[in-house]
Amino acid sequence: MDERIFELEEQIFDLIENKKFVQLKEILSEMQPADIAEIFEEAKDKEIPVLFRILPKSLAAEVFVEFDSDKQEILLNSFSDNELRAVLDELFMDDAADIVEEMPATVAKRILKNADANTRRQINQLLAYPDDCAGSIMTTEYIDLKRTMTVDEAFDRIRKIGFDTETIYTCYVIGSRRKLFGTISLRDLLLSGKDQIIGDIMDENVIFANTLDHKEDVAAMFERYDMLALPVVDTEGRLVGIVTVDDAIDVIQEAASEDIEKMAAILPSEKTYLKTGVFETFKSRIPWLLLLMISATFTGAIISSFEAKLAQCIALVAFIPMLMGTGGNSGSQTSVSIIRALSLGDIEFRDMLRVIWKELRVAIIVGIVLGAINFIKLYLVDFLWLHTFDTGAELAEMTTICLTLILVIIVAKLLGAVLPIVAKKFGLDPAVMASPLVTTILDAVSLLIYFGIAAVLVL
Amino acid sequence: MDERIFELEEQIFDLIENKKFVQLKEILSEMQPADIAEIFEEAKDKEIPVLFRILPKSLAAEVFVEFDSDKQEILLNSFSDNELRAVLDELFMDDAADIVEEMPATVAKRILKNADANTRRQINQLLAYPDDCAGSIMTTEYIDLKRTMTVDEAFDRIRKIGFDTETIYTCYVIGSRRKLFGTISLRDLLLSGKDQIIGDIMDENVIFANTLDHKEDVAAMFERYDMLALPVVDTEGRLVGIVTVDDAIDVIQEAASEDIEKMAAILPSEKTYLKTGVFETFKSRIPWLLLLMISATFTGAIISSFEAKLAQCIALVAFIPMLMGTGGNSGSQTSVSIIRALSLGDIEFRDMLRVIWKELRVAIIVGIVLGAINFIKLYLVDFLWLHTFDTGAELAEMTTICLTLILVIIVAKLLGAVLPIVAKKFGLDPAVMASPLVTTILDAVSLLIYFGIAAVLVL
Repeated sequence: MDERIFELEEQIFDLIENKKFVQLKEILSEMQPADIAEIFEEAKDKEIPVLFRILPKSLAAEVFVEFDSDKQEILLNSFSDNELRAVLDELFMDDAADIVEEMPATVAKRILKNADANTRRQINQLLAYPDDCAGSIMTTEYIDLKRTMTVDEAFDRIRKIGFDTETIYTCYVIGSRRKLFGTISLRDLLLSGKDQIIGDIMDENVIFANTLDHKEDVAAMFERYDMLALPVVDTEGRLVGIVTVDDAIDVIQEAASEDIEKMAAILPSEKTYLKTGVFETFKSRIPWLLLLMISATFTGAIISSFEAKLAQCIALVAFIPMLMGTGGNSGSQTSVSIIRALSLGDIEFRDMLRVIWKELRVAIIVGIVLGAINFIKLYLVDFLWLHTFDTGAELAEMTTICLTLILVIIVAKLLGAVLPIVAKKFGLDPAVMASPLVTTILDAVSLLIYFGIAAVLVL
Repeated sequence: MDERIFELEEQIFDLIENKKFVQLKEILSEMQPADIAEIFEEAKDKEIPVLFRILPKSLAAEVFVEFDSDKQEILLNSFSDNELRAVLDELFMDDAADIVEEMPATVAKRILKNADANTRRQINQLLAYPDDCAGSIMTTEYIDLKRTMTVDEAFDRIRKIGFDTETIYTCYVIGSRRKLFGTISLRDLLLSGKDQIIGDIMDENVIFANTLDHKEDVAAMFERYDMLALPVVDTEGRLVGIVTVDDAIDVIQEAASEDIEKMAAILPSEKTYLKTGVFETFKSRIPWLLLLMISATFTGAIISSFEAKLAQCIALVAFIPMLMGTGGNSGSQTSVSIIRALSLGDIEFRDMLRVIWKELRVAIIVGIVLGAINFIKLYLVDFLWLHTFDTGAELAEMTTICLTLILVIIVAKLLGAVLPIVAKKFGLDPAVMASPLVTTILDAVSLLIYFGIAAVLVL
């Protein structure tokens, strides 16, 4: 796929350089909007408006939507009012609202000024919804039918308004004040007799979302029910828009990226990696690094307070990284599994005891296996070969290390299981409870266990 | 959403207990297959076949697909040959193939024996594709049209075969030997004149996949081009099946889960968290824990070899966890960002220098900021207040810690950027280069830098 686009890119830039615009137009008209946008984004800023004007009108609007907001702003500033209206006319309402939202105030104002009254009203309505809710990802254009229509009349309506709607494959049956009564798929319409009445053949068990439902819950409904579009109703059950599957896919990807970023102690960003500036990247990474660095002070303080005793069994110091590392890895294995399962809706708060019971058993097996292997390794490598341990305390030191390992793994897995579930219960983000935070807590806990056991067995 | 299902669940189990099957059937017929399956899975194994028989035929097949393979096996074993054929008849081909693949040999054989010759041939064909390729997620039923048909004839064909195909919204225009010439959406058919010729109005710029393309690349095409279905052709350009958007969504979620698991040093599993047994979970977690534990031996060895010198400046030991932790966190921030960007196709190998240049600048800013804050903290807290440092070496020790911190962050971010990109270039999985492995390498590097600087400045 990519290779093909790279080749096209070279060919296109050749044509641009030699100003062969007729040939260029021919090639571009055959291409996909996303591919054209990717290639245009490599062009110089001042070339973009020229290139854009080569595109046929409806393709131009589709390419426009695929651009990032910087390029969109450049283009909008280069547009005459007529050009602006032409693009605006071709946009779906949800895309138009997204663009207005991302533009600086002056550009946004100019867009709204050039929109007709109806479009302006709809854009403003969409902009009023909070960023993470169903209302913010829905579009306001859809096929609406009446219960009393025949199938034939329904087809007439689809032919009449279908050019402007994002999908025609699910139609929405509404009554007075736009109350949603049912849905009917184009497939069912096509496979029904021409004279059948919509009210008789529509599906009354409508799956719908409310405007303020979280957009990730909406995306999960697409996954669960294999839908192409989902109606969105307000608190009074009136149809206000629909979410289409392509937008649900974007939400799914965004949500996964966000979870991954949070698990890696990064503040989530909406931009792609290469489009995020150095300073922005810095800002998304520094808060957690700073917090975790400061909190590592506790680990340092614990070591410092045992300094005098540590000097007596300095051999134990060498095993601190291994113990903390294994604890951290065990904990993040569990916390990450739990966070993902919570995200996908595989587990709920009520499953907490089952989760704890499962993790406890896993932890005991993992602990015993790693503890045993570690003991063998300590005996063969560190004791017999390297003579790492302090004379006279060899067995006590080896036992201390292995016992700590087992206990740390158990604590790590339990903490990794409980923290995200509890966080979610209290309305906090479970992903924040992921590896870095769990690891930092575990570092301190590991040391306390280590020095505690050492105090009993070695000192 | 969930609350509603919990309530239904109670109501349904009440009806089951009181054997009110008529009422039960009424409620179930109004429900979504995924919801019914979720509720049935809570029932006792021997109740499931009874419950299943209450469902209307076509709903039953849809519910069957939603069950996990254990329940499917129970059901299949309880089916008479007639019942088996009835369900099989309603299944889409890709679902049928998935089920045959997951069943034990005897059950699989029985399914194939009861399938008609055509179904059997198609299932066997689908099973022949490797698990991670387009062929394994496609279905073989779709609407095929000829170039010479009129729009009216196309509609006749859709009405004739549309009941059995998973989607009718994109139709595929094929020639002799099923060679794919173009596609046409039902929307375009509906908005075209009845007598227009398919060959004239079809879209010839078909986006397609090859049977052996990786399924994640196929899913990415859905995301990029906002499609509902994608045709899959063999090496000779013949149409062999289509992938529908609901399967693409499943691939996207699976891929994200897999990446997340690998980043947390877990071997990926296909089952959901609660459905994975304790021993299976153990097996997916132990390999990396073991490897990382063993490799932490190097860190231990480095500390051991500096033991004698460490005794002279024991204060430095307390800062090892902070340095290793910050290094690990910085590195995994970068590696995780890069791995996700590689997965999403936002960066390629050719972007490596841009990535390195960006990470270097971010690392320098992060390093200087954290280094400076750390120096202030060391001075105020550890030096003035706690008197942590060894007398006479205070400034040297503080400088050593802060210099190490800055260098470790720079190394961490560069390594976190380069390793995943290089891994991908060499055909390895970039996600494996994620936090745990990068962290372990960084632990060793951090210590070497720390003791190296200490040797110059303090000792």
